[in-house]
Amino acid sequence: MSSFSWPIRVYYESTDAGGVVYHAEYLKFYERARTEWLRSLGFEQTELRTQQGVIFVVHHMQIKYVQPARFNDLLKVESRLVQLGRSRFVFEQALLRAEELLNQATVEVVCVSDGAFRPSALPARIRQQFEKVLT
Amino acid sequence: MSSFSWPIRVYYESTDAGGVVYHAEYLKFYERARTEWLRSLGFEQTELRTQQGVIFVVHHMQIKYVQPARFNDLLKVESRLVQLGRSRFVFEQALLRAEELLNQATVEVVCVSDGAFRPSALPARIRQQFEKVLT
Amino acid sequence: MSSFSWPIRVYYESTDAGGVVYHAEYLKFYERARTEWLRSLGFEQTELRTQQGVIFVVHHMQIKYVQPARFNDLLKVESRLVQLGRSRFVFEQALLRAEELLNQATVEVVCVSDGAFRPSALPARIRQQFEKVLT
Amino acid sequence: MSSFSWPIRVYYESTDAGGVVYHAEYLKFYERARTEWLRSLGFEQTELRTQQGVIFVVHHMQIKYVQPARFNDLLKVESRLVQLGRSRFVFEQALLRAEELLNQATVEVVCVSDGAFRPSALPARIRQQFEKVLT
Repeated sequence: MSSFSWPIRVYYESTDAGGVVYHAEYLKFYERARTEWLRSLGFEQTELRTQQGVIFVVHHMQIKYVQPARFNDLLKVESRLVQLGRSRFVFEQALLRAEELLNQATVEVVCVSDGAFRPSALPARIRQQFEKVLT
Repeated sequence: MSSFSWPIRVYYESTDAGGVVYHAEYLKFYERARTEWLRSLGFEQTELRTQQGVIFVVHHMQIKYVQPARFNDLLKVESRLVQLGRSRFVFEQALLRAEELLNQATVEVVCVSDGAFRPSALPARIRQQFEKVLT
Repeated sequence: MSSFSWPIRVYYESTDAGGVVYHAEYLKFYERARTEWLRSLGFEQTELRTQQGVIFVVHHMQIKYVQPARFNDLLKVESRLVQLGRSRFVFEQALLRAEELLNQATVEVVCVSDGAFRPSALPARIRQQFEKVLT
Repeated sequence: MSSFSWPIRVYYESTDAGGVVYHAEYLKFYERARTEWLRSLGFEQTELRTQQGVIFVVHHMQIKYVQPARFNDLLKVESRLVQLGRSRFVFEQALLRAEELLNQATVEVVCVSDGAFRPSALPARIRQQFEKVLT
C-alpha cells in the first residue's frame, strides 16, 4: 500500500555491448527512485545536508537480476520502506517493465554525519514521516 | 591461496558530491577485476562470445559498504572463485586500501547464450581452468 | 520556435567529488534530450535499428562549460536542429537552470549502418520530419 | 617529444548497446590520462586541493569521433600540453588502438578556487613544470 512508483526510461548511457542494461546501472535507477520517494515526503537531500549536517549512504545491498532491461524500455521502480532503526532503514525495490519483474533489490541505507561518515540518528521530522509510510 | 589481485586507481569519474566513490562504481571495479582474472587464466570474453556464443552475466550480488573509497586512492580488488556449477559460478571479492577493507561482495555469475540470455553450460576448457583455481 | 525542451534532474550518479556535475555527464543529458526530441517527432531508435538498419552516432562535439550544475538541480535542455545533410545533422543544445545558462554544445550526428558504422543516407520519412523543424 | 602515453583497457562499463564505447566515456579516458600526466610531473590533485585550495575543471572541449573503440580493446591515450595561460591550459589528446587513430580531443582546463569555482592563477611550482613540457 505504501509502495512508491517512479518511471525510468532507458537511454544508451545505461546499456552495454551485451545489448542490455549494464548491471551497475540498476543501482542508479534505484537511487533515483529513493530520492524521489524522499522528495514526495517533503525532504530534499540538499537541505538535509546543509541544515541537518547528514547524508544518506548505502550500507548494504542485495540485488537480483531476473530479466535484462533493454535500450529504450520504459520501466518503473516500485519502492517500499520495510525497516526503520535509529540511523538505518531498509528499502525493498523492484524494477518492472509493464507487469514483468526485471530486477529486485533490498537496500540498507544509513544516515551519517556529512564528512566523517559516522552513523547519526535520523532527524525527528524525517523519522515521523518514515513511520507513517513504513510497510 | 587462489586469490587474484588487481589494482584500481580512483579518478573523478567514480566519485560523487558526497566526496567519496559513488556506490554503483564499486560494481565496475569488481567487474574489471573479474575480467582480468579471466584473462589471467587465458580467456578473452570477446572470443567466448564470437567462438562459443556465450557471455557472462551477473545474476545475483550482495555488496557491503564498509568504508568509503575516495578520490585518488590506489586500491586493490582481491577476487576468489568459491563455487562452480554447470552454468553458474560465484566469486568473493573485496576492495582494499593497503590492508584496510573498504568493500566486500559476493557475486553470482551465469554463463548465458549470447542474444537469448538462456543459461548455458560453461565451455569445457573454461570449466577445467576454473576447477584448478576453485578455492 | 523549433526549440525542444526536456527536463533533467541531477541525482548523485551525475556528480563528482568536486561537488558539481562530472564533466562527461553533460553528454548524457544532451543525448537524453536528443532521444526525446526524436521521439516527439514520432521516431523510436529501436525501430530505426531493427526496421531501417541504421543507428545515430555522435561524430563531432563542441562543449562549453559555463557554470557548474549541482546535485539536486532541476535543469532543462533546449535542443534545436540547425543543419541537415544527406547523412549528417547538427544540433545546438543548451543546459539551463531556470534562465541561467550552464552549458552549451554543438553536436554533429551521423546516420550509420548498424554493425559496419558506415555513413548511410537518412531514411526519407525522417528527413521529411527533420526538414519541418530545421531552424 | 613531450607526449605522455597512458594505456586504457575497455571494459563492459564503457560500452553501449550499439556495441561500441559510449560517446561520453571517451571523456573519462582523457581525464584519466590528464590525471596520470599530472602525477608523472609530481602533482597529486588531492594535494592541490587541500594545500593550494585549487582544483582543475574542464572549461571547453572539442572532440572528434573518428573510429569506434570496442569492448576489450587495449588502447592508449597520447596527451600533450599545447597552451599555457595564467589560469588556463590546453591539451591535445588522442586515443589510439595500435597505430590507428580512434578519437581526438582539444581540452581547455582552468585552475579554479575550490568551492567558489573562480579562475585562480596556477600555483608557481606547477607553472614551472608545465613550462618545461609545453610543446
